[in-house]
Amino acid sequence: MGEVQLGPGFWAERQRLAGEVMVDHCRAWMTRLGWVDNFRLAAEGRPLAERHGREFSDSEVYKLLEALSWEAGRSGRPDHERAVVALSEQVAAAQEPDGYLNTRFGHQSLGLRYTNLAWGHELYCYGHLIQAAVARLRTHGDDLLVSVARRAADHVCEEFGADGRAGVCGHPEIEMALVELFRATGEERYLEQAQLFVERRGHGVLGEIQLGPAYFQDDVPVRQARVLRGHAVRALYLACGAVDVAVERGDDELLEAVAEQWRTTVAARTYLTGGMGSRHTGESFGEDFELPPDRAYSETCAGVAAVMLAWRLLLATGDARHADLAERTLYNVVATSPALDGRSFFYANPLHQRVPGMVVDPDVVNPRAEASLRSAWFDVACCPPNVARTLASLAAYVATVDDGGVQLHQLTACSVRTSLPDGRTVGLSVDTGYPWTGDVVVRVRETRGRWRMALRVPAWAEGAVLDVGGERRPVPPGYAVAEQDWRPGDQVRLELPVRARWTRPDPRIDAVRGCVAVERGPLVYCAESVGQDPSARPEAVAVDTSVLPAEHGLDTELGSAVALACSNRPARVPPAGWPYGGHTSAAGAARAPLILVPYHLWGNRGPAAMRVWLPESPGEEGPA
Amino acid sequence: MGEVQLGPGFWAERQRLAGEVMVDHCRAWMTRLGWVDNFRLAAEGRPLAERHGREFSDSEVYKLLEALSWEAGRSGRPDHERAVVALSEQVAAAQEPDGYLNTRFGHQSLGLRYTNLAWGHELYCYGHLIQAAVARLRTHGDDLLVSVARRAADHVCEEFGADGRAGVCGHPEIEMALVELFRATGEERYLEQAQLFVERRGHGVLGEIQLGPAYFQDDVPVRQARVLRGHAVRALYLACGAVDVAVERGDDELLEAVAEQWRTTVAARTYLTGGMGSRHTGESFGEDFELPPDRAYSETCAGVAAVMLAWRLLLATGDARHADLAERTLYNVVATSPALDGRSFFYANPLHQRVPGMVVDPDVVNPRAEASLRSAWFDVACCPPNVARTLASLAAYVATVDDGGVQLHQLTACSVRTSLPDGRTVGLSVDTGYPWTGDVVVRVRETRGRWRMALRVPAWAEGAVLDVGGERRPVPPGYAVAEQDWRPGDQVRLELPVRARWTRPDPRIDAVRGCVAVERGPLVYCAESVGQDPSARPEAVAVDTSVLPAEHGLDTELGSAVALACSNRPARVPPAGWPYGGHTSAAGAARAPLILVPYHLWGNRGPAAMRVWLPESPGEEGPA
Repeated sequence: MGEVQLGPGFWAERQRLAGEVMVDHCRAWMTRLGWVDNFRLAAEGRPLAERHGREFSDSEVYKLLEALSWEAGRSGRPDHERAVVALSEQVAAAQEPDGYLNTRFGHQSLGLRYTNLAWGHELYCYGHLIQAAVARLRTHGDDLLVSVARRAADHVCEEFGADGRAGVCGHPEIEMALVELFRATGEERYLEQAQLFVERRGHGVLGEIQLGPAYFQDDVPVRQARVLRGHAVRALYLACGAVDVAVERGDDELLEAVAEQWRTTVAARTYLTGGMGSRHTGESFGEDFELPPDRAYSETCAGVAAVMLAWRLLLATGDARHADLAERTLYNVVATSPALDGRSFFYANPLHQRVPGMVVDPDVVNPRAEASLRSAWFDVACCPPNVARTLASLAAYVATVDDGGVQLHQLTACSVRTSLPDGRTVGLSVDTGYPWTGDVVVRVRETRGRWRMALRVPAWAEGAVLDVGGERRPVPPGYAVAEQDWRPGDQVRLELPVRARWTRPDPRIDAVRGCVAVERGPLVYCAESVGQDPSARPEAVAVDTSVLPAEHGLDTELGSAVALACSNRPARVPPAGWPYGGHTSAAGAARAPLILVPYHLWGNRGPAAMRVWLPESPGEEGPA
Repeated sequence: MGEVQLGPGFWAERQRLAGEVMVDHCRAWMTRLGWVDNFRLAAEGRPLAERHGREFSDSEVYKLLEALSWEAGRSGRPDHERAVVALSEQVAAAQEPDGYLNTRFGHQSLGLRYTNLAWGHELYCYGHLIQAAVARLRTHGDDLLVSVARRAADHVCEEFGADGRAGVCGHPEIEMALVELFRATGEERYLEQAQLFVERRGHGVLGEIQLGPAYFQDDVPVRQARVLRGHAVRALYLACGAVDVAVERGDDELLEAVAEQWRTTVAARTYLTGGMGSRHTGESFGEDFELPPDRAYSETCAGVAAVMLAWRLLLATGDARHADLAERTLYNVVATSPALDGRSFFYANPLHQRVPGMVVDPDVVNPRAEASLRSAWFDVACCPPNVARTLASLAAYVATVDDGGVQLHQLTACSVRTSLPDGRTVGLSVDTGYPWTGDVVVRVRETRGRWRMALRVPAWAEGAVLDVGGERRPVPPGYAVAEQDWRPGDQVRLELPVRARWTRPDPRIDAVRGCVAVERGPLVYCAESVGQDPSARPEAVAVDTSVLPAEHGLDTELGSAVALACSNRPARVPPAGWPYGGHTSAAGAARAPLILVPYHLWGNRGPAAMRVWLPESPGEEGPA
């Protein structure tokens, strides 16, 4: 974390928003709703009736603690540091002598510990507690939060170890948390416990539920599954934990099992945005190629989890496609969730909104996840703090070091100061207007000798050019590598062809047959009903793909962006009455251009209909 | 009911199945699961812990009682009559002195009456009790069941009258039941109470819920709504009750309000099958043109309710389109639910099944509504008895009489013996192989003088011919009318062009863009993965619409049917990896014909993938 700082641009603006607005926003809501005070109530042994929030609300406090820990470490802001200390003290007060910690179970009058592993979320909450402590260890060192989390982790190992309860949590999360705690502390038992949880799952250990055991991945053991399925966040968190265990244990079979599930999932169960989860029912993956844009669930947290999994697979395999997917999901899911003011969030991220939504009162908790406008807070509020902790720790996803040199995976303005394995220091600065423009300039600030600099060339960037000290050469997608004896002042420029392109779907994705999407660089675009000429109505439009959209600038509260203008004509619509088998009227004349904006910006100008996939005009001679 | 008997053919076979198999099947399951015994438990004041089934299980017993009553009246089978008497006695035992009757609420240790109108279903259960009693009044006359239902209805009028509790039930149903009881008894207070329930709704009287007040139509008053919305069965039952009230009160504003909602719903929220309800979440309508075939819910009960509403609007307006829709829904939703042996049922009726389902154990209750194979029984078992009561009373939907003569709305073999308003008797017999063949022959058996015989010509039947005593003339969709001085032995023949036709969707139905469906007469067809040549795989197919499908016979357990064979080629599929923007491989050569079967027959040959909407081949020169 300390070796990369984001520079001015897209992600730094959003990271600033996380530190300056989102964490305070989350803390204020959790305080107002009593989720923080639940720890006091538990410490005092108060009855269940006085408790507030859902059974997993502790985890939201822990995700906030994680975000605050990253932010305190990154920015050094004393108020964030004070917040970490204050919240840690409140949490610590509720911990029982044996390490058990939960505000919903375990105390007199609350209900017995571990009596409802399927839905109780006790282990899930520990997972987020531990991840917060790991953030603290990585940015600050041992403290109260760390000792609370270690005591909880030790308790879990006692209780759920090889000789203990042979259970798992209905919601995976603790698996990767325990491996991260092992990495941060060197304590082997945490890794062993994570491994036990990964291996136990998939044998029906959680019992039958109406949604079926695939909902929480208890249908098939991890190392036997073919594809991710069931609740998307659960599936992705479990896969992260499995990769962590596989990497630490050198378990190539397990790693390849998850990698294969990921390939299948990316090939057939992933939205163009990188979003995952096709169904509102069970917040779950659908079948292969079941990817409806309108009823896409594509939960923000599933986007966060997909980035975490892609990152782990990138580290494990070095395959640039994982970094591509992480980039896609960061720009088009994670960045989509928060409003430009950081005070409201999408929970679901559909690719088609048919009807403009109702304005959501910013002072009210939204009981439904599927509002068509961002909401200040949700009854189930997993997404806002998940976005905050991801943005706060985003520098960790940018670069890696290996024996050969430095790899830049995310093309974002930043400064890097790190050490090669042989001890040599490398200092770099990266300047770029990406994703709006395609030039990425890396300046070597501090270095000695020969090493390899690798820059990721995204899969869409055919025709990219690498300029190393004036020597230009075409570079294919993957990693463009420059190797030489570097000197301070040396410069490498990657030139990516960032321009609008038409993207067509696999014909097995029935829900978007006959449509095109527009992408530009890593960004997916959409047509929003606001800001259009009245003649260009996204709800009944057919675009002319014979000419590429024109580009023009667009100012936003978080800096300038690029909008696109498409030729289009009205869709051929039959007379009202019965929508099957009727003759359609002839297509009308071309109209005002249809304006497309980056998908992550949609919904910031009030209630709007929206669509990513645009019906393609069949032309005057096409089928009626 | 006594004036029409179905003759040999499609519907008589299914009615036979209802009487000989379904009612016994339903009674056996309700007995086995304790739903019948709940009435004894309630009568004895047993605690809630001993009760079985969901809070609305009483209603299933009442729907079974309704089906048995129709069947006892129709067939005169003494075992059905004995079953009605036995069940009525069990129900009657649980009724309280003031008429209250419910096995889930109202008794010591069960929970207070009417404390949860939103979810308790007490009034909904009365509705089905009353409809069973109306069936008894129409086929038998006053008896114990009728007196129980009247006491319950009187209690409701006392309790929820103009001076009583200003509430409504979370699930509409009692509204139409009360109007039907008014019609059967002449007791005006039942109509008044129904009117109160219709008018009270839509003002937020049920409170806020996570699904939103539209879920149970409490968002907008009936007479102000624009379209049906929320839970489909609730919306349709409410609309039925509103039409009943409007017709009895001469309230043209209310009637037109529902008629307009129906027009909008049919035009933009109805599947090709006539099915309604696009979303699993809330079992609800979606937005206009949100009609995904794969995630279609299209609950069987919504199909039953849509037939009931279409029938009411037909009676109120005389518009043949309502009879068309009723026919479509009967053949493609109601007839689809039961297996050919009458022992298992579809709850949801999607138009696309991507993956063959798991075999469902016929001895196990299915906890999920969305299984891809029919199930013997469900945790929520509304559909099986709803199908049974509909088939048992199907003769009521066939014909009407008005001042001018007789109208035949459903083209099914039957005999009719009725009286014109002036007292003259008319006897007819109808012979037809419809829906497999298009000739409908009406023979006049008994008659005097001049009157008008009207036969419905479905909207798809362009080119139909009416032959009246050898005189042939083309007849457009609507009603073909023959008026003359009739004599016994006179014959009218309607010739309908029953042949396969391609049907294309409104381009605003995004989910099926670029696809065609095949219809033949009133039947929607589908491609099932079983029974195909291995080279013709419905999951990745493109059909050639330049030639009409070939027809061939198909034997089933319920008589012969017609299958179709389509020219097709493999879909152009890109290489695996990322399903957007790839180049597709060239379309392959034509393959074995793709066999289509009537949609209502699908899933009777074991686990199968299935699709109604077939991607249309773009040809060799089409877009990749």
